[in-house]
Amino acid sequence: MEAVDLSQVAVHTITTKPWPIETAIERYARAGFGGITVWRDALEGRELPAVRRQITDAGLQTVALVRGGFFCHRNEEERAKGHADNLRAIEEAAGIDAPMVVLVCGAHPAQTLAVSRAQIREGIERLLPEAERLNVQLAIEPLHPMYADDRSAINDLATATDMANQIGSPLVGVAVDVYHLWWDPNLEREIARCGKDGRLFAFHVCDWRTPTRHMLLDRGLMGEGCIPIREIRGWVEKAGFKGLHEVEIFSEERWKGDQDAWLAAIADASLKHV
Amino acid sequence: MEAVDLSQVAVHTITTKPWPIETAIERYARAGFGGITVWRDALEGRELPAVRRQITDAGLQTVALVRGGFFCHRNEEERAKGHADNLRAIEEAAGIDAPMVVLVCGAHPAQTLAVSRAQIREGIERLLPEAERLNVQLAIEPLHPMYADDRSAINDLATATDMANQIGSPLVGVAVDVYHLWWDPNLEREIARCGKDGRLFAFHVCDWRTPTRHMLLDRGLMGEGCIPIREIRGWVEKAGFKGLHEVEIFSEERWKGDQDAWLAAIADASLKHV
Repeated sequence: MEAVDLSQVAVHTITTKPWPIETAIERYARAGFGGITVWRDALEGRELPAVRRQITDAGLQTVALVRGGFFCHRNEEERAKGHADNLRAIEEAAGIDAPMVVLVCGAHPAQTLAVSRAQIREGIERLLPEAERLNVQLAIEPLHPMYADDRSAINDLATATDMANQIGSPLVGVAVDVYHLWWDPNLEREIARCGKDGRLFAFHVCDWRTPTRHMLLDRGLMGEGCIPIREIRGWVEKAGFKGLHEVEIFSEERWKGDQDAWLAAIADASLKHV
Repeated sequence: MEAVDLSQVAVHTITTKPWPIETAIERYARAGFGGITVWRDALEGRELPAVRRQITDAGLQTVALVRGGFFCHRNEEERAKGHADNLRAIEEAAGIDAPMVVLVCGAHPAQTLAVSRAQIREGIERLLPEAERLNVQLAIEPLHPMYADDRSAINDLATATDMANQIGSPLVGVAVDVYHLWWDPNLEREIARCGKDGRLFAFHVCDWRTPTRHMLLDRGLMGEGCIPIREIRGWVEKAGFKGLHEVEIFSEERWKGDQDAWLAAIADASLKHV
């Protein structure tokens, strides 16, 4: 398989967390990346039109806003608060011309996964009118089963695709992240089905380190772990995905280092391993 | 659902790791547990007939020997070494009258899961003559996907049942551990199928803590986490399982404390949450 061109690669702002978004935009563009995915914390205190303009002027494509979701709740107050925050996420996405909000769907250790999944479906459906009004896609991101206790009750691709199909809106799809899904023995088949059903909205890459030192903040750079990223990219492209490949790496270790060197390593790894 | 009786519960020696096996046998029996599952490290330096006799005299049932497996290899030398060690595990099981060896099947970050799965199947098949000669069952334990890099390439129940069926020996089945499998959206259906196919050999319990502080050594006591253990026990029993429920908890935190108090807490939690 051919290597990707950096213009086909986007970087999540969280990947270079120490940088304010203004620096991230400037450096991603200068390094030749094609896009940016914006985490909401990076927008704090900013005017959305100014951020949108800077991204456009830099020649970057905005792939998504991360993240909405956390639909699980223990009472009506929690539900209403979560809903209001998700409405704001959709508005922020529209405000920076991001076509999509990525959803980390939520879970709660005090309730069963079945209950959480029902709340997730209901929560997404409740967002549809606003998503339709602003033409913003909603991408369900299945999370690794090690996050099933309190982050997401959607833990494999089949469940995510099924839920998107059940909701049935063309605005609802799935974000495939190799970190969360690489272990799934049905991954090739499920990626094909997700694409065939028109639900394959996003593709995230990073790697799985051995050993993994922290369950949240020790993701690896592509090539330093065991995930067959290029093989999975092949499945995703065969399934019809034409979007940018998004680099999303949470790494306390990398955030401590020089971010310019880190971005250069990401560019290099994108060419070699995506 | 009715609570279990302690005579239906076995404890893994690793759960009370600080105790030598002689102490574990004596205390498990005194507390009213029905069985013991023996980890191989607990047998070091012991004569097998003496251990077997002490377990029998204490009135305990030996449920299994833990663990064989680690079938994945990078060269012929590694393969042969692993095979020899698995032969010893089968002989040790027979030596203490344990009817079963639990298999942690292995994985290697430098090879694909498909390659690892092929090596696992081949490795188990190669053990069959010895397992048949000594009439020892082999139980494939699917491990949580967070261990897919270097511990096991068998990460859900469907894959384990399929492999046992493909091997096709009545001596090869599956160990269901709630810690590894609780998140699986198909768990109820897959437990039913595993039982129907005659492959449901063992049932392990513990709990999943939020947050989990260590990926290996922070398992929870039943009731202190989010796993619906009693519901899963119901599925397992409905699938025809009649064996003992095995408590297997790796916990650095608990190992640091008083082991008599810990065993009393396990007995209490078994009655309340299994």
